[in-house]
Amino acid sequence: MLSTQAKQAIAIAKTIKAQQDMPLTTTNILQARAGADQGNPFEFPANVTLLPVATDHVNGEFYLLNGQVKATGKTVLMFLHGGAYMTGTVKSRRWLAVNLALNCGYDTFSVDYRQYPEAQHPAAQNDVEAAYAYLQQRYEQVVVFGESAGACLALTLTLSLKKQGKSLPARVSVFSPVISQLNLLTSEFTNQERDPMLLGAGAPVLYFKEPASLDPLVSPIYGDYTGFPPLMINCGTEEVKYDDAVILNQLCQAKGVPVIFKAWQDLFHVFVLFDMPETQVALRQIGDFLKMNCND
Amino acid sequence: MLSTQAKQAIAIAKTIKAQQDMPLTTTNILQARAGADQGNPFEFPANVTLLPVATDHVNGEFYLLNGQVKATGKTVLMFLHGGAYMTGTVKSRRWLAVNLALNCGYDTFSVDYRQYPEAQHPAAQNDVEAAYAYLQQRYEQVVVFGESAGACLALTLTLSLKKQGKSLPARVSVFSPVISQLNLLTSEFTNQERDPMLLGAGAPVLYFKEPASLDPLVSPIYGDYTGFPPLMINCGTEEVKYDDAVILNQLCQAKGVPVIFKAWQDLFHVFVLFDMPETQVALRQIGDFLKMNCND
Repeated sequence: MLSTQAKQAIAIAKTIKAQQDMPLTTTNILQARAGADQGNPFEFPANVTLLPVATDHVNGEFYLLNGQVKATGKTVLMFLHGGAYMTGTVKSRRWLAVNLALNCGYDTFSVDYRQYPEAQHPAAQNDVEAAYAYLQQRYEQVVVFGESAGACLALTLTLSLKKQGKSLPARVSVFSPVISQLNLLTSEFTNQERDPMLLGAGAPVLYFKEPASLDPLVSPIYGDYTGFPPLMINCGTEEVKYDDAVILNQLCQAKGVPVIFKAWQDLFHVFVLFDMPETQVALRQIGDFLKMNCND
Repeated sequence: MLSTQAKQAIAIAKTIKAQQDMPLTTTNILQARAGADQGNPFEFPANVTLLPVATDHVNGEFYLLNGQVKATGKTVLMFLHGGAYMTGTVKSRRWLAVNLALNCGYDTFSVDYRQYPEAQHPAAQNDVEAAYAYLQQRYEQVVVFGESAGACLALTLTLSLKKQGKSLPARVSVFSPVISQLNLLTSEFTNQERDPMLLGAGAPVLYFKEPASLDPLVSPIYGDYTGFPPLMINCGTEEVKYDDAVILNQLCQAKGVPVIFKAWQDLFHVFVLFDMPETQVALRQIGDFLKMNCND
């Protein structure tokens, strides 16, 4: 049974769904980002140090553990926020990113990749690849977490590295992944009423000029997952994106990828953004997954 | 439990699946059509008269009941064969079309529409619309049955007539419908191993130059089903096309269309082509549906 807090979160999600047919003007998008920041205030705990990064190619925030002030060490968690390549922000995900950092015990870097309307594909892909190279210079290994569009980027980053023959993230964890830009998988239709947060079967996000492209870096449903690192998939059963998770699990299992697939009964798209008992369990499990000996 | 005949049909279906990665050369396509004809010999019963039609715009075969020699009357069944807009033939579907004719008691016209490689979209759509107009001149009302790609044409015909404000078929029955040309619905992946007949998630059929088009006459998943005539959907649960049927049911229910959705447990794509006990039940039910008083 869902916790009281989860039921409250569902009520909040419904107000988000009700706003989703807003016209996608620049003003509305910027307002949505500002609203996300204001709606998710966060005070850093004493044992976490914020270190902003702004270079020509890499933008984002480090959350350093144990009183560190330099971003170096054994393992770093790369955090990729969602928001339809449009309305997400690094700041609004600080609570989630820091809680993941604390659960797995790794310094964490949240990437501030370019979105629509400022940019279109492949800007976000390029930014995430640049951030990965940057982290590799500072840490021995990188693990990746992404939610929604950020989960898509976690997959396209890894597929691109694999194609280039570069060293891969040690582990990848995706939450409510999006793997096709066409919003055409079955649950987009069958969960249309059920999903408390997202409208189903809508127009593709504006970030992609060619959302029907068969390029796996646009829609990783077309990716070859042979040799993909161990993957953990979390999602809610009520999501219009539920089948993205189902198919990703299928694609990975078919290629022998070690994959953990966790569908949270009665929960919704990226519920992990809400502080509630189910989220605490999910964060602990994701932390455990990311902490595992990566040679196992 | 499946009949012995159904189990035998599944074994035959598997041999069809094994041949499906053949290169789609003109020679191979023509051989597949000839093979379908040879593999489905049919002797007309005494109470059914074959009347071929070949005009500039309309090609096909009438199967006339009760010793008639003229194609006129109250109701006619338009039959639309499948075969990926490529390998299907009118001749190979005579058994099915005549059995449907006998089950609903209507003269039946099986449309010989143009396919790939001889033609591409919208040739088949134009041929089916021309055949519909032709039948309307001869009969008071038309009901439509289509299987697989023919089911898609039954839907696109009706959607096109609706858009043009023309009079619609009284009833539409689709078997193992295809409603998206992208082979991207979830069951294309989840039923890939399970489906005994079709490979899943493959390349779009070559008949469509732009399979990613949002035009409902290419992929009726984008259609508006408001005011659609009563619809009966049959499919097998093991199909890679299973979700096409699920979503079509959802789209129609959402618009208040009277829809009957029958998923045949453990059966496969267009199993109705095989003479077996399950097919006899399905044909009787489809006949009953098509026979109903169309004003009800």
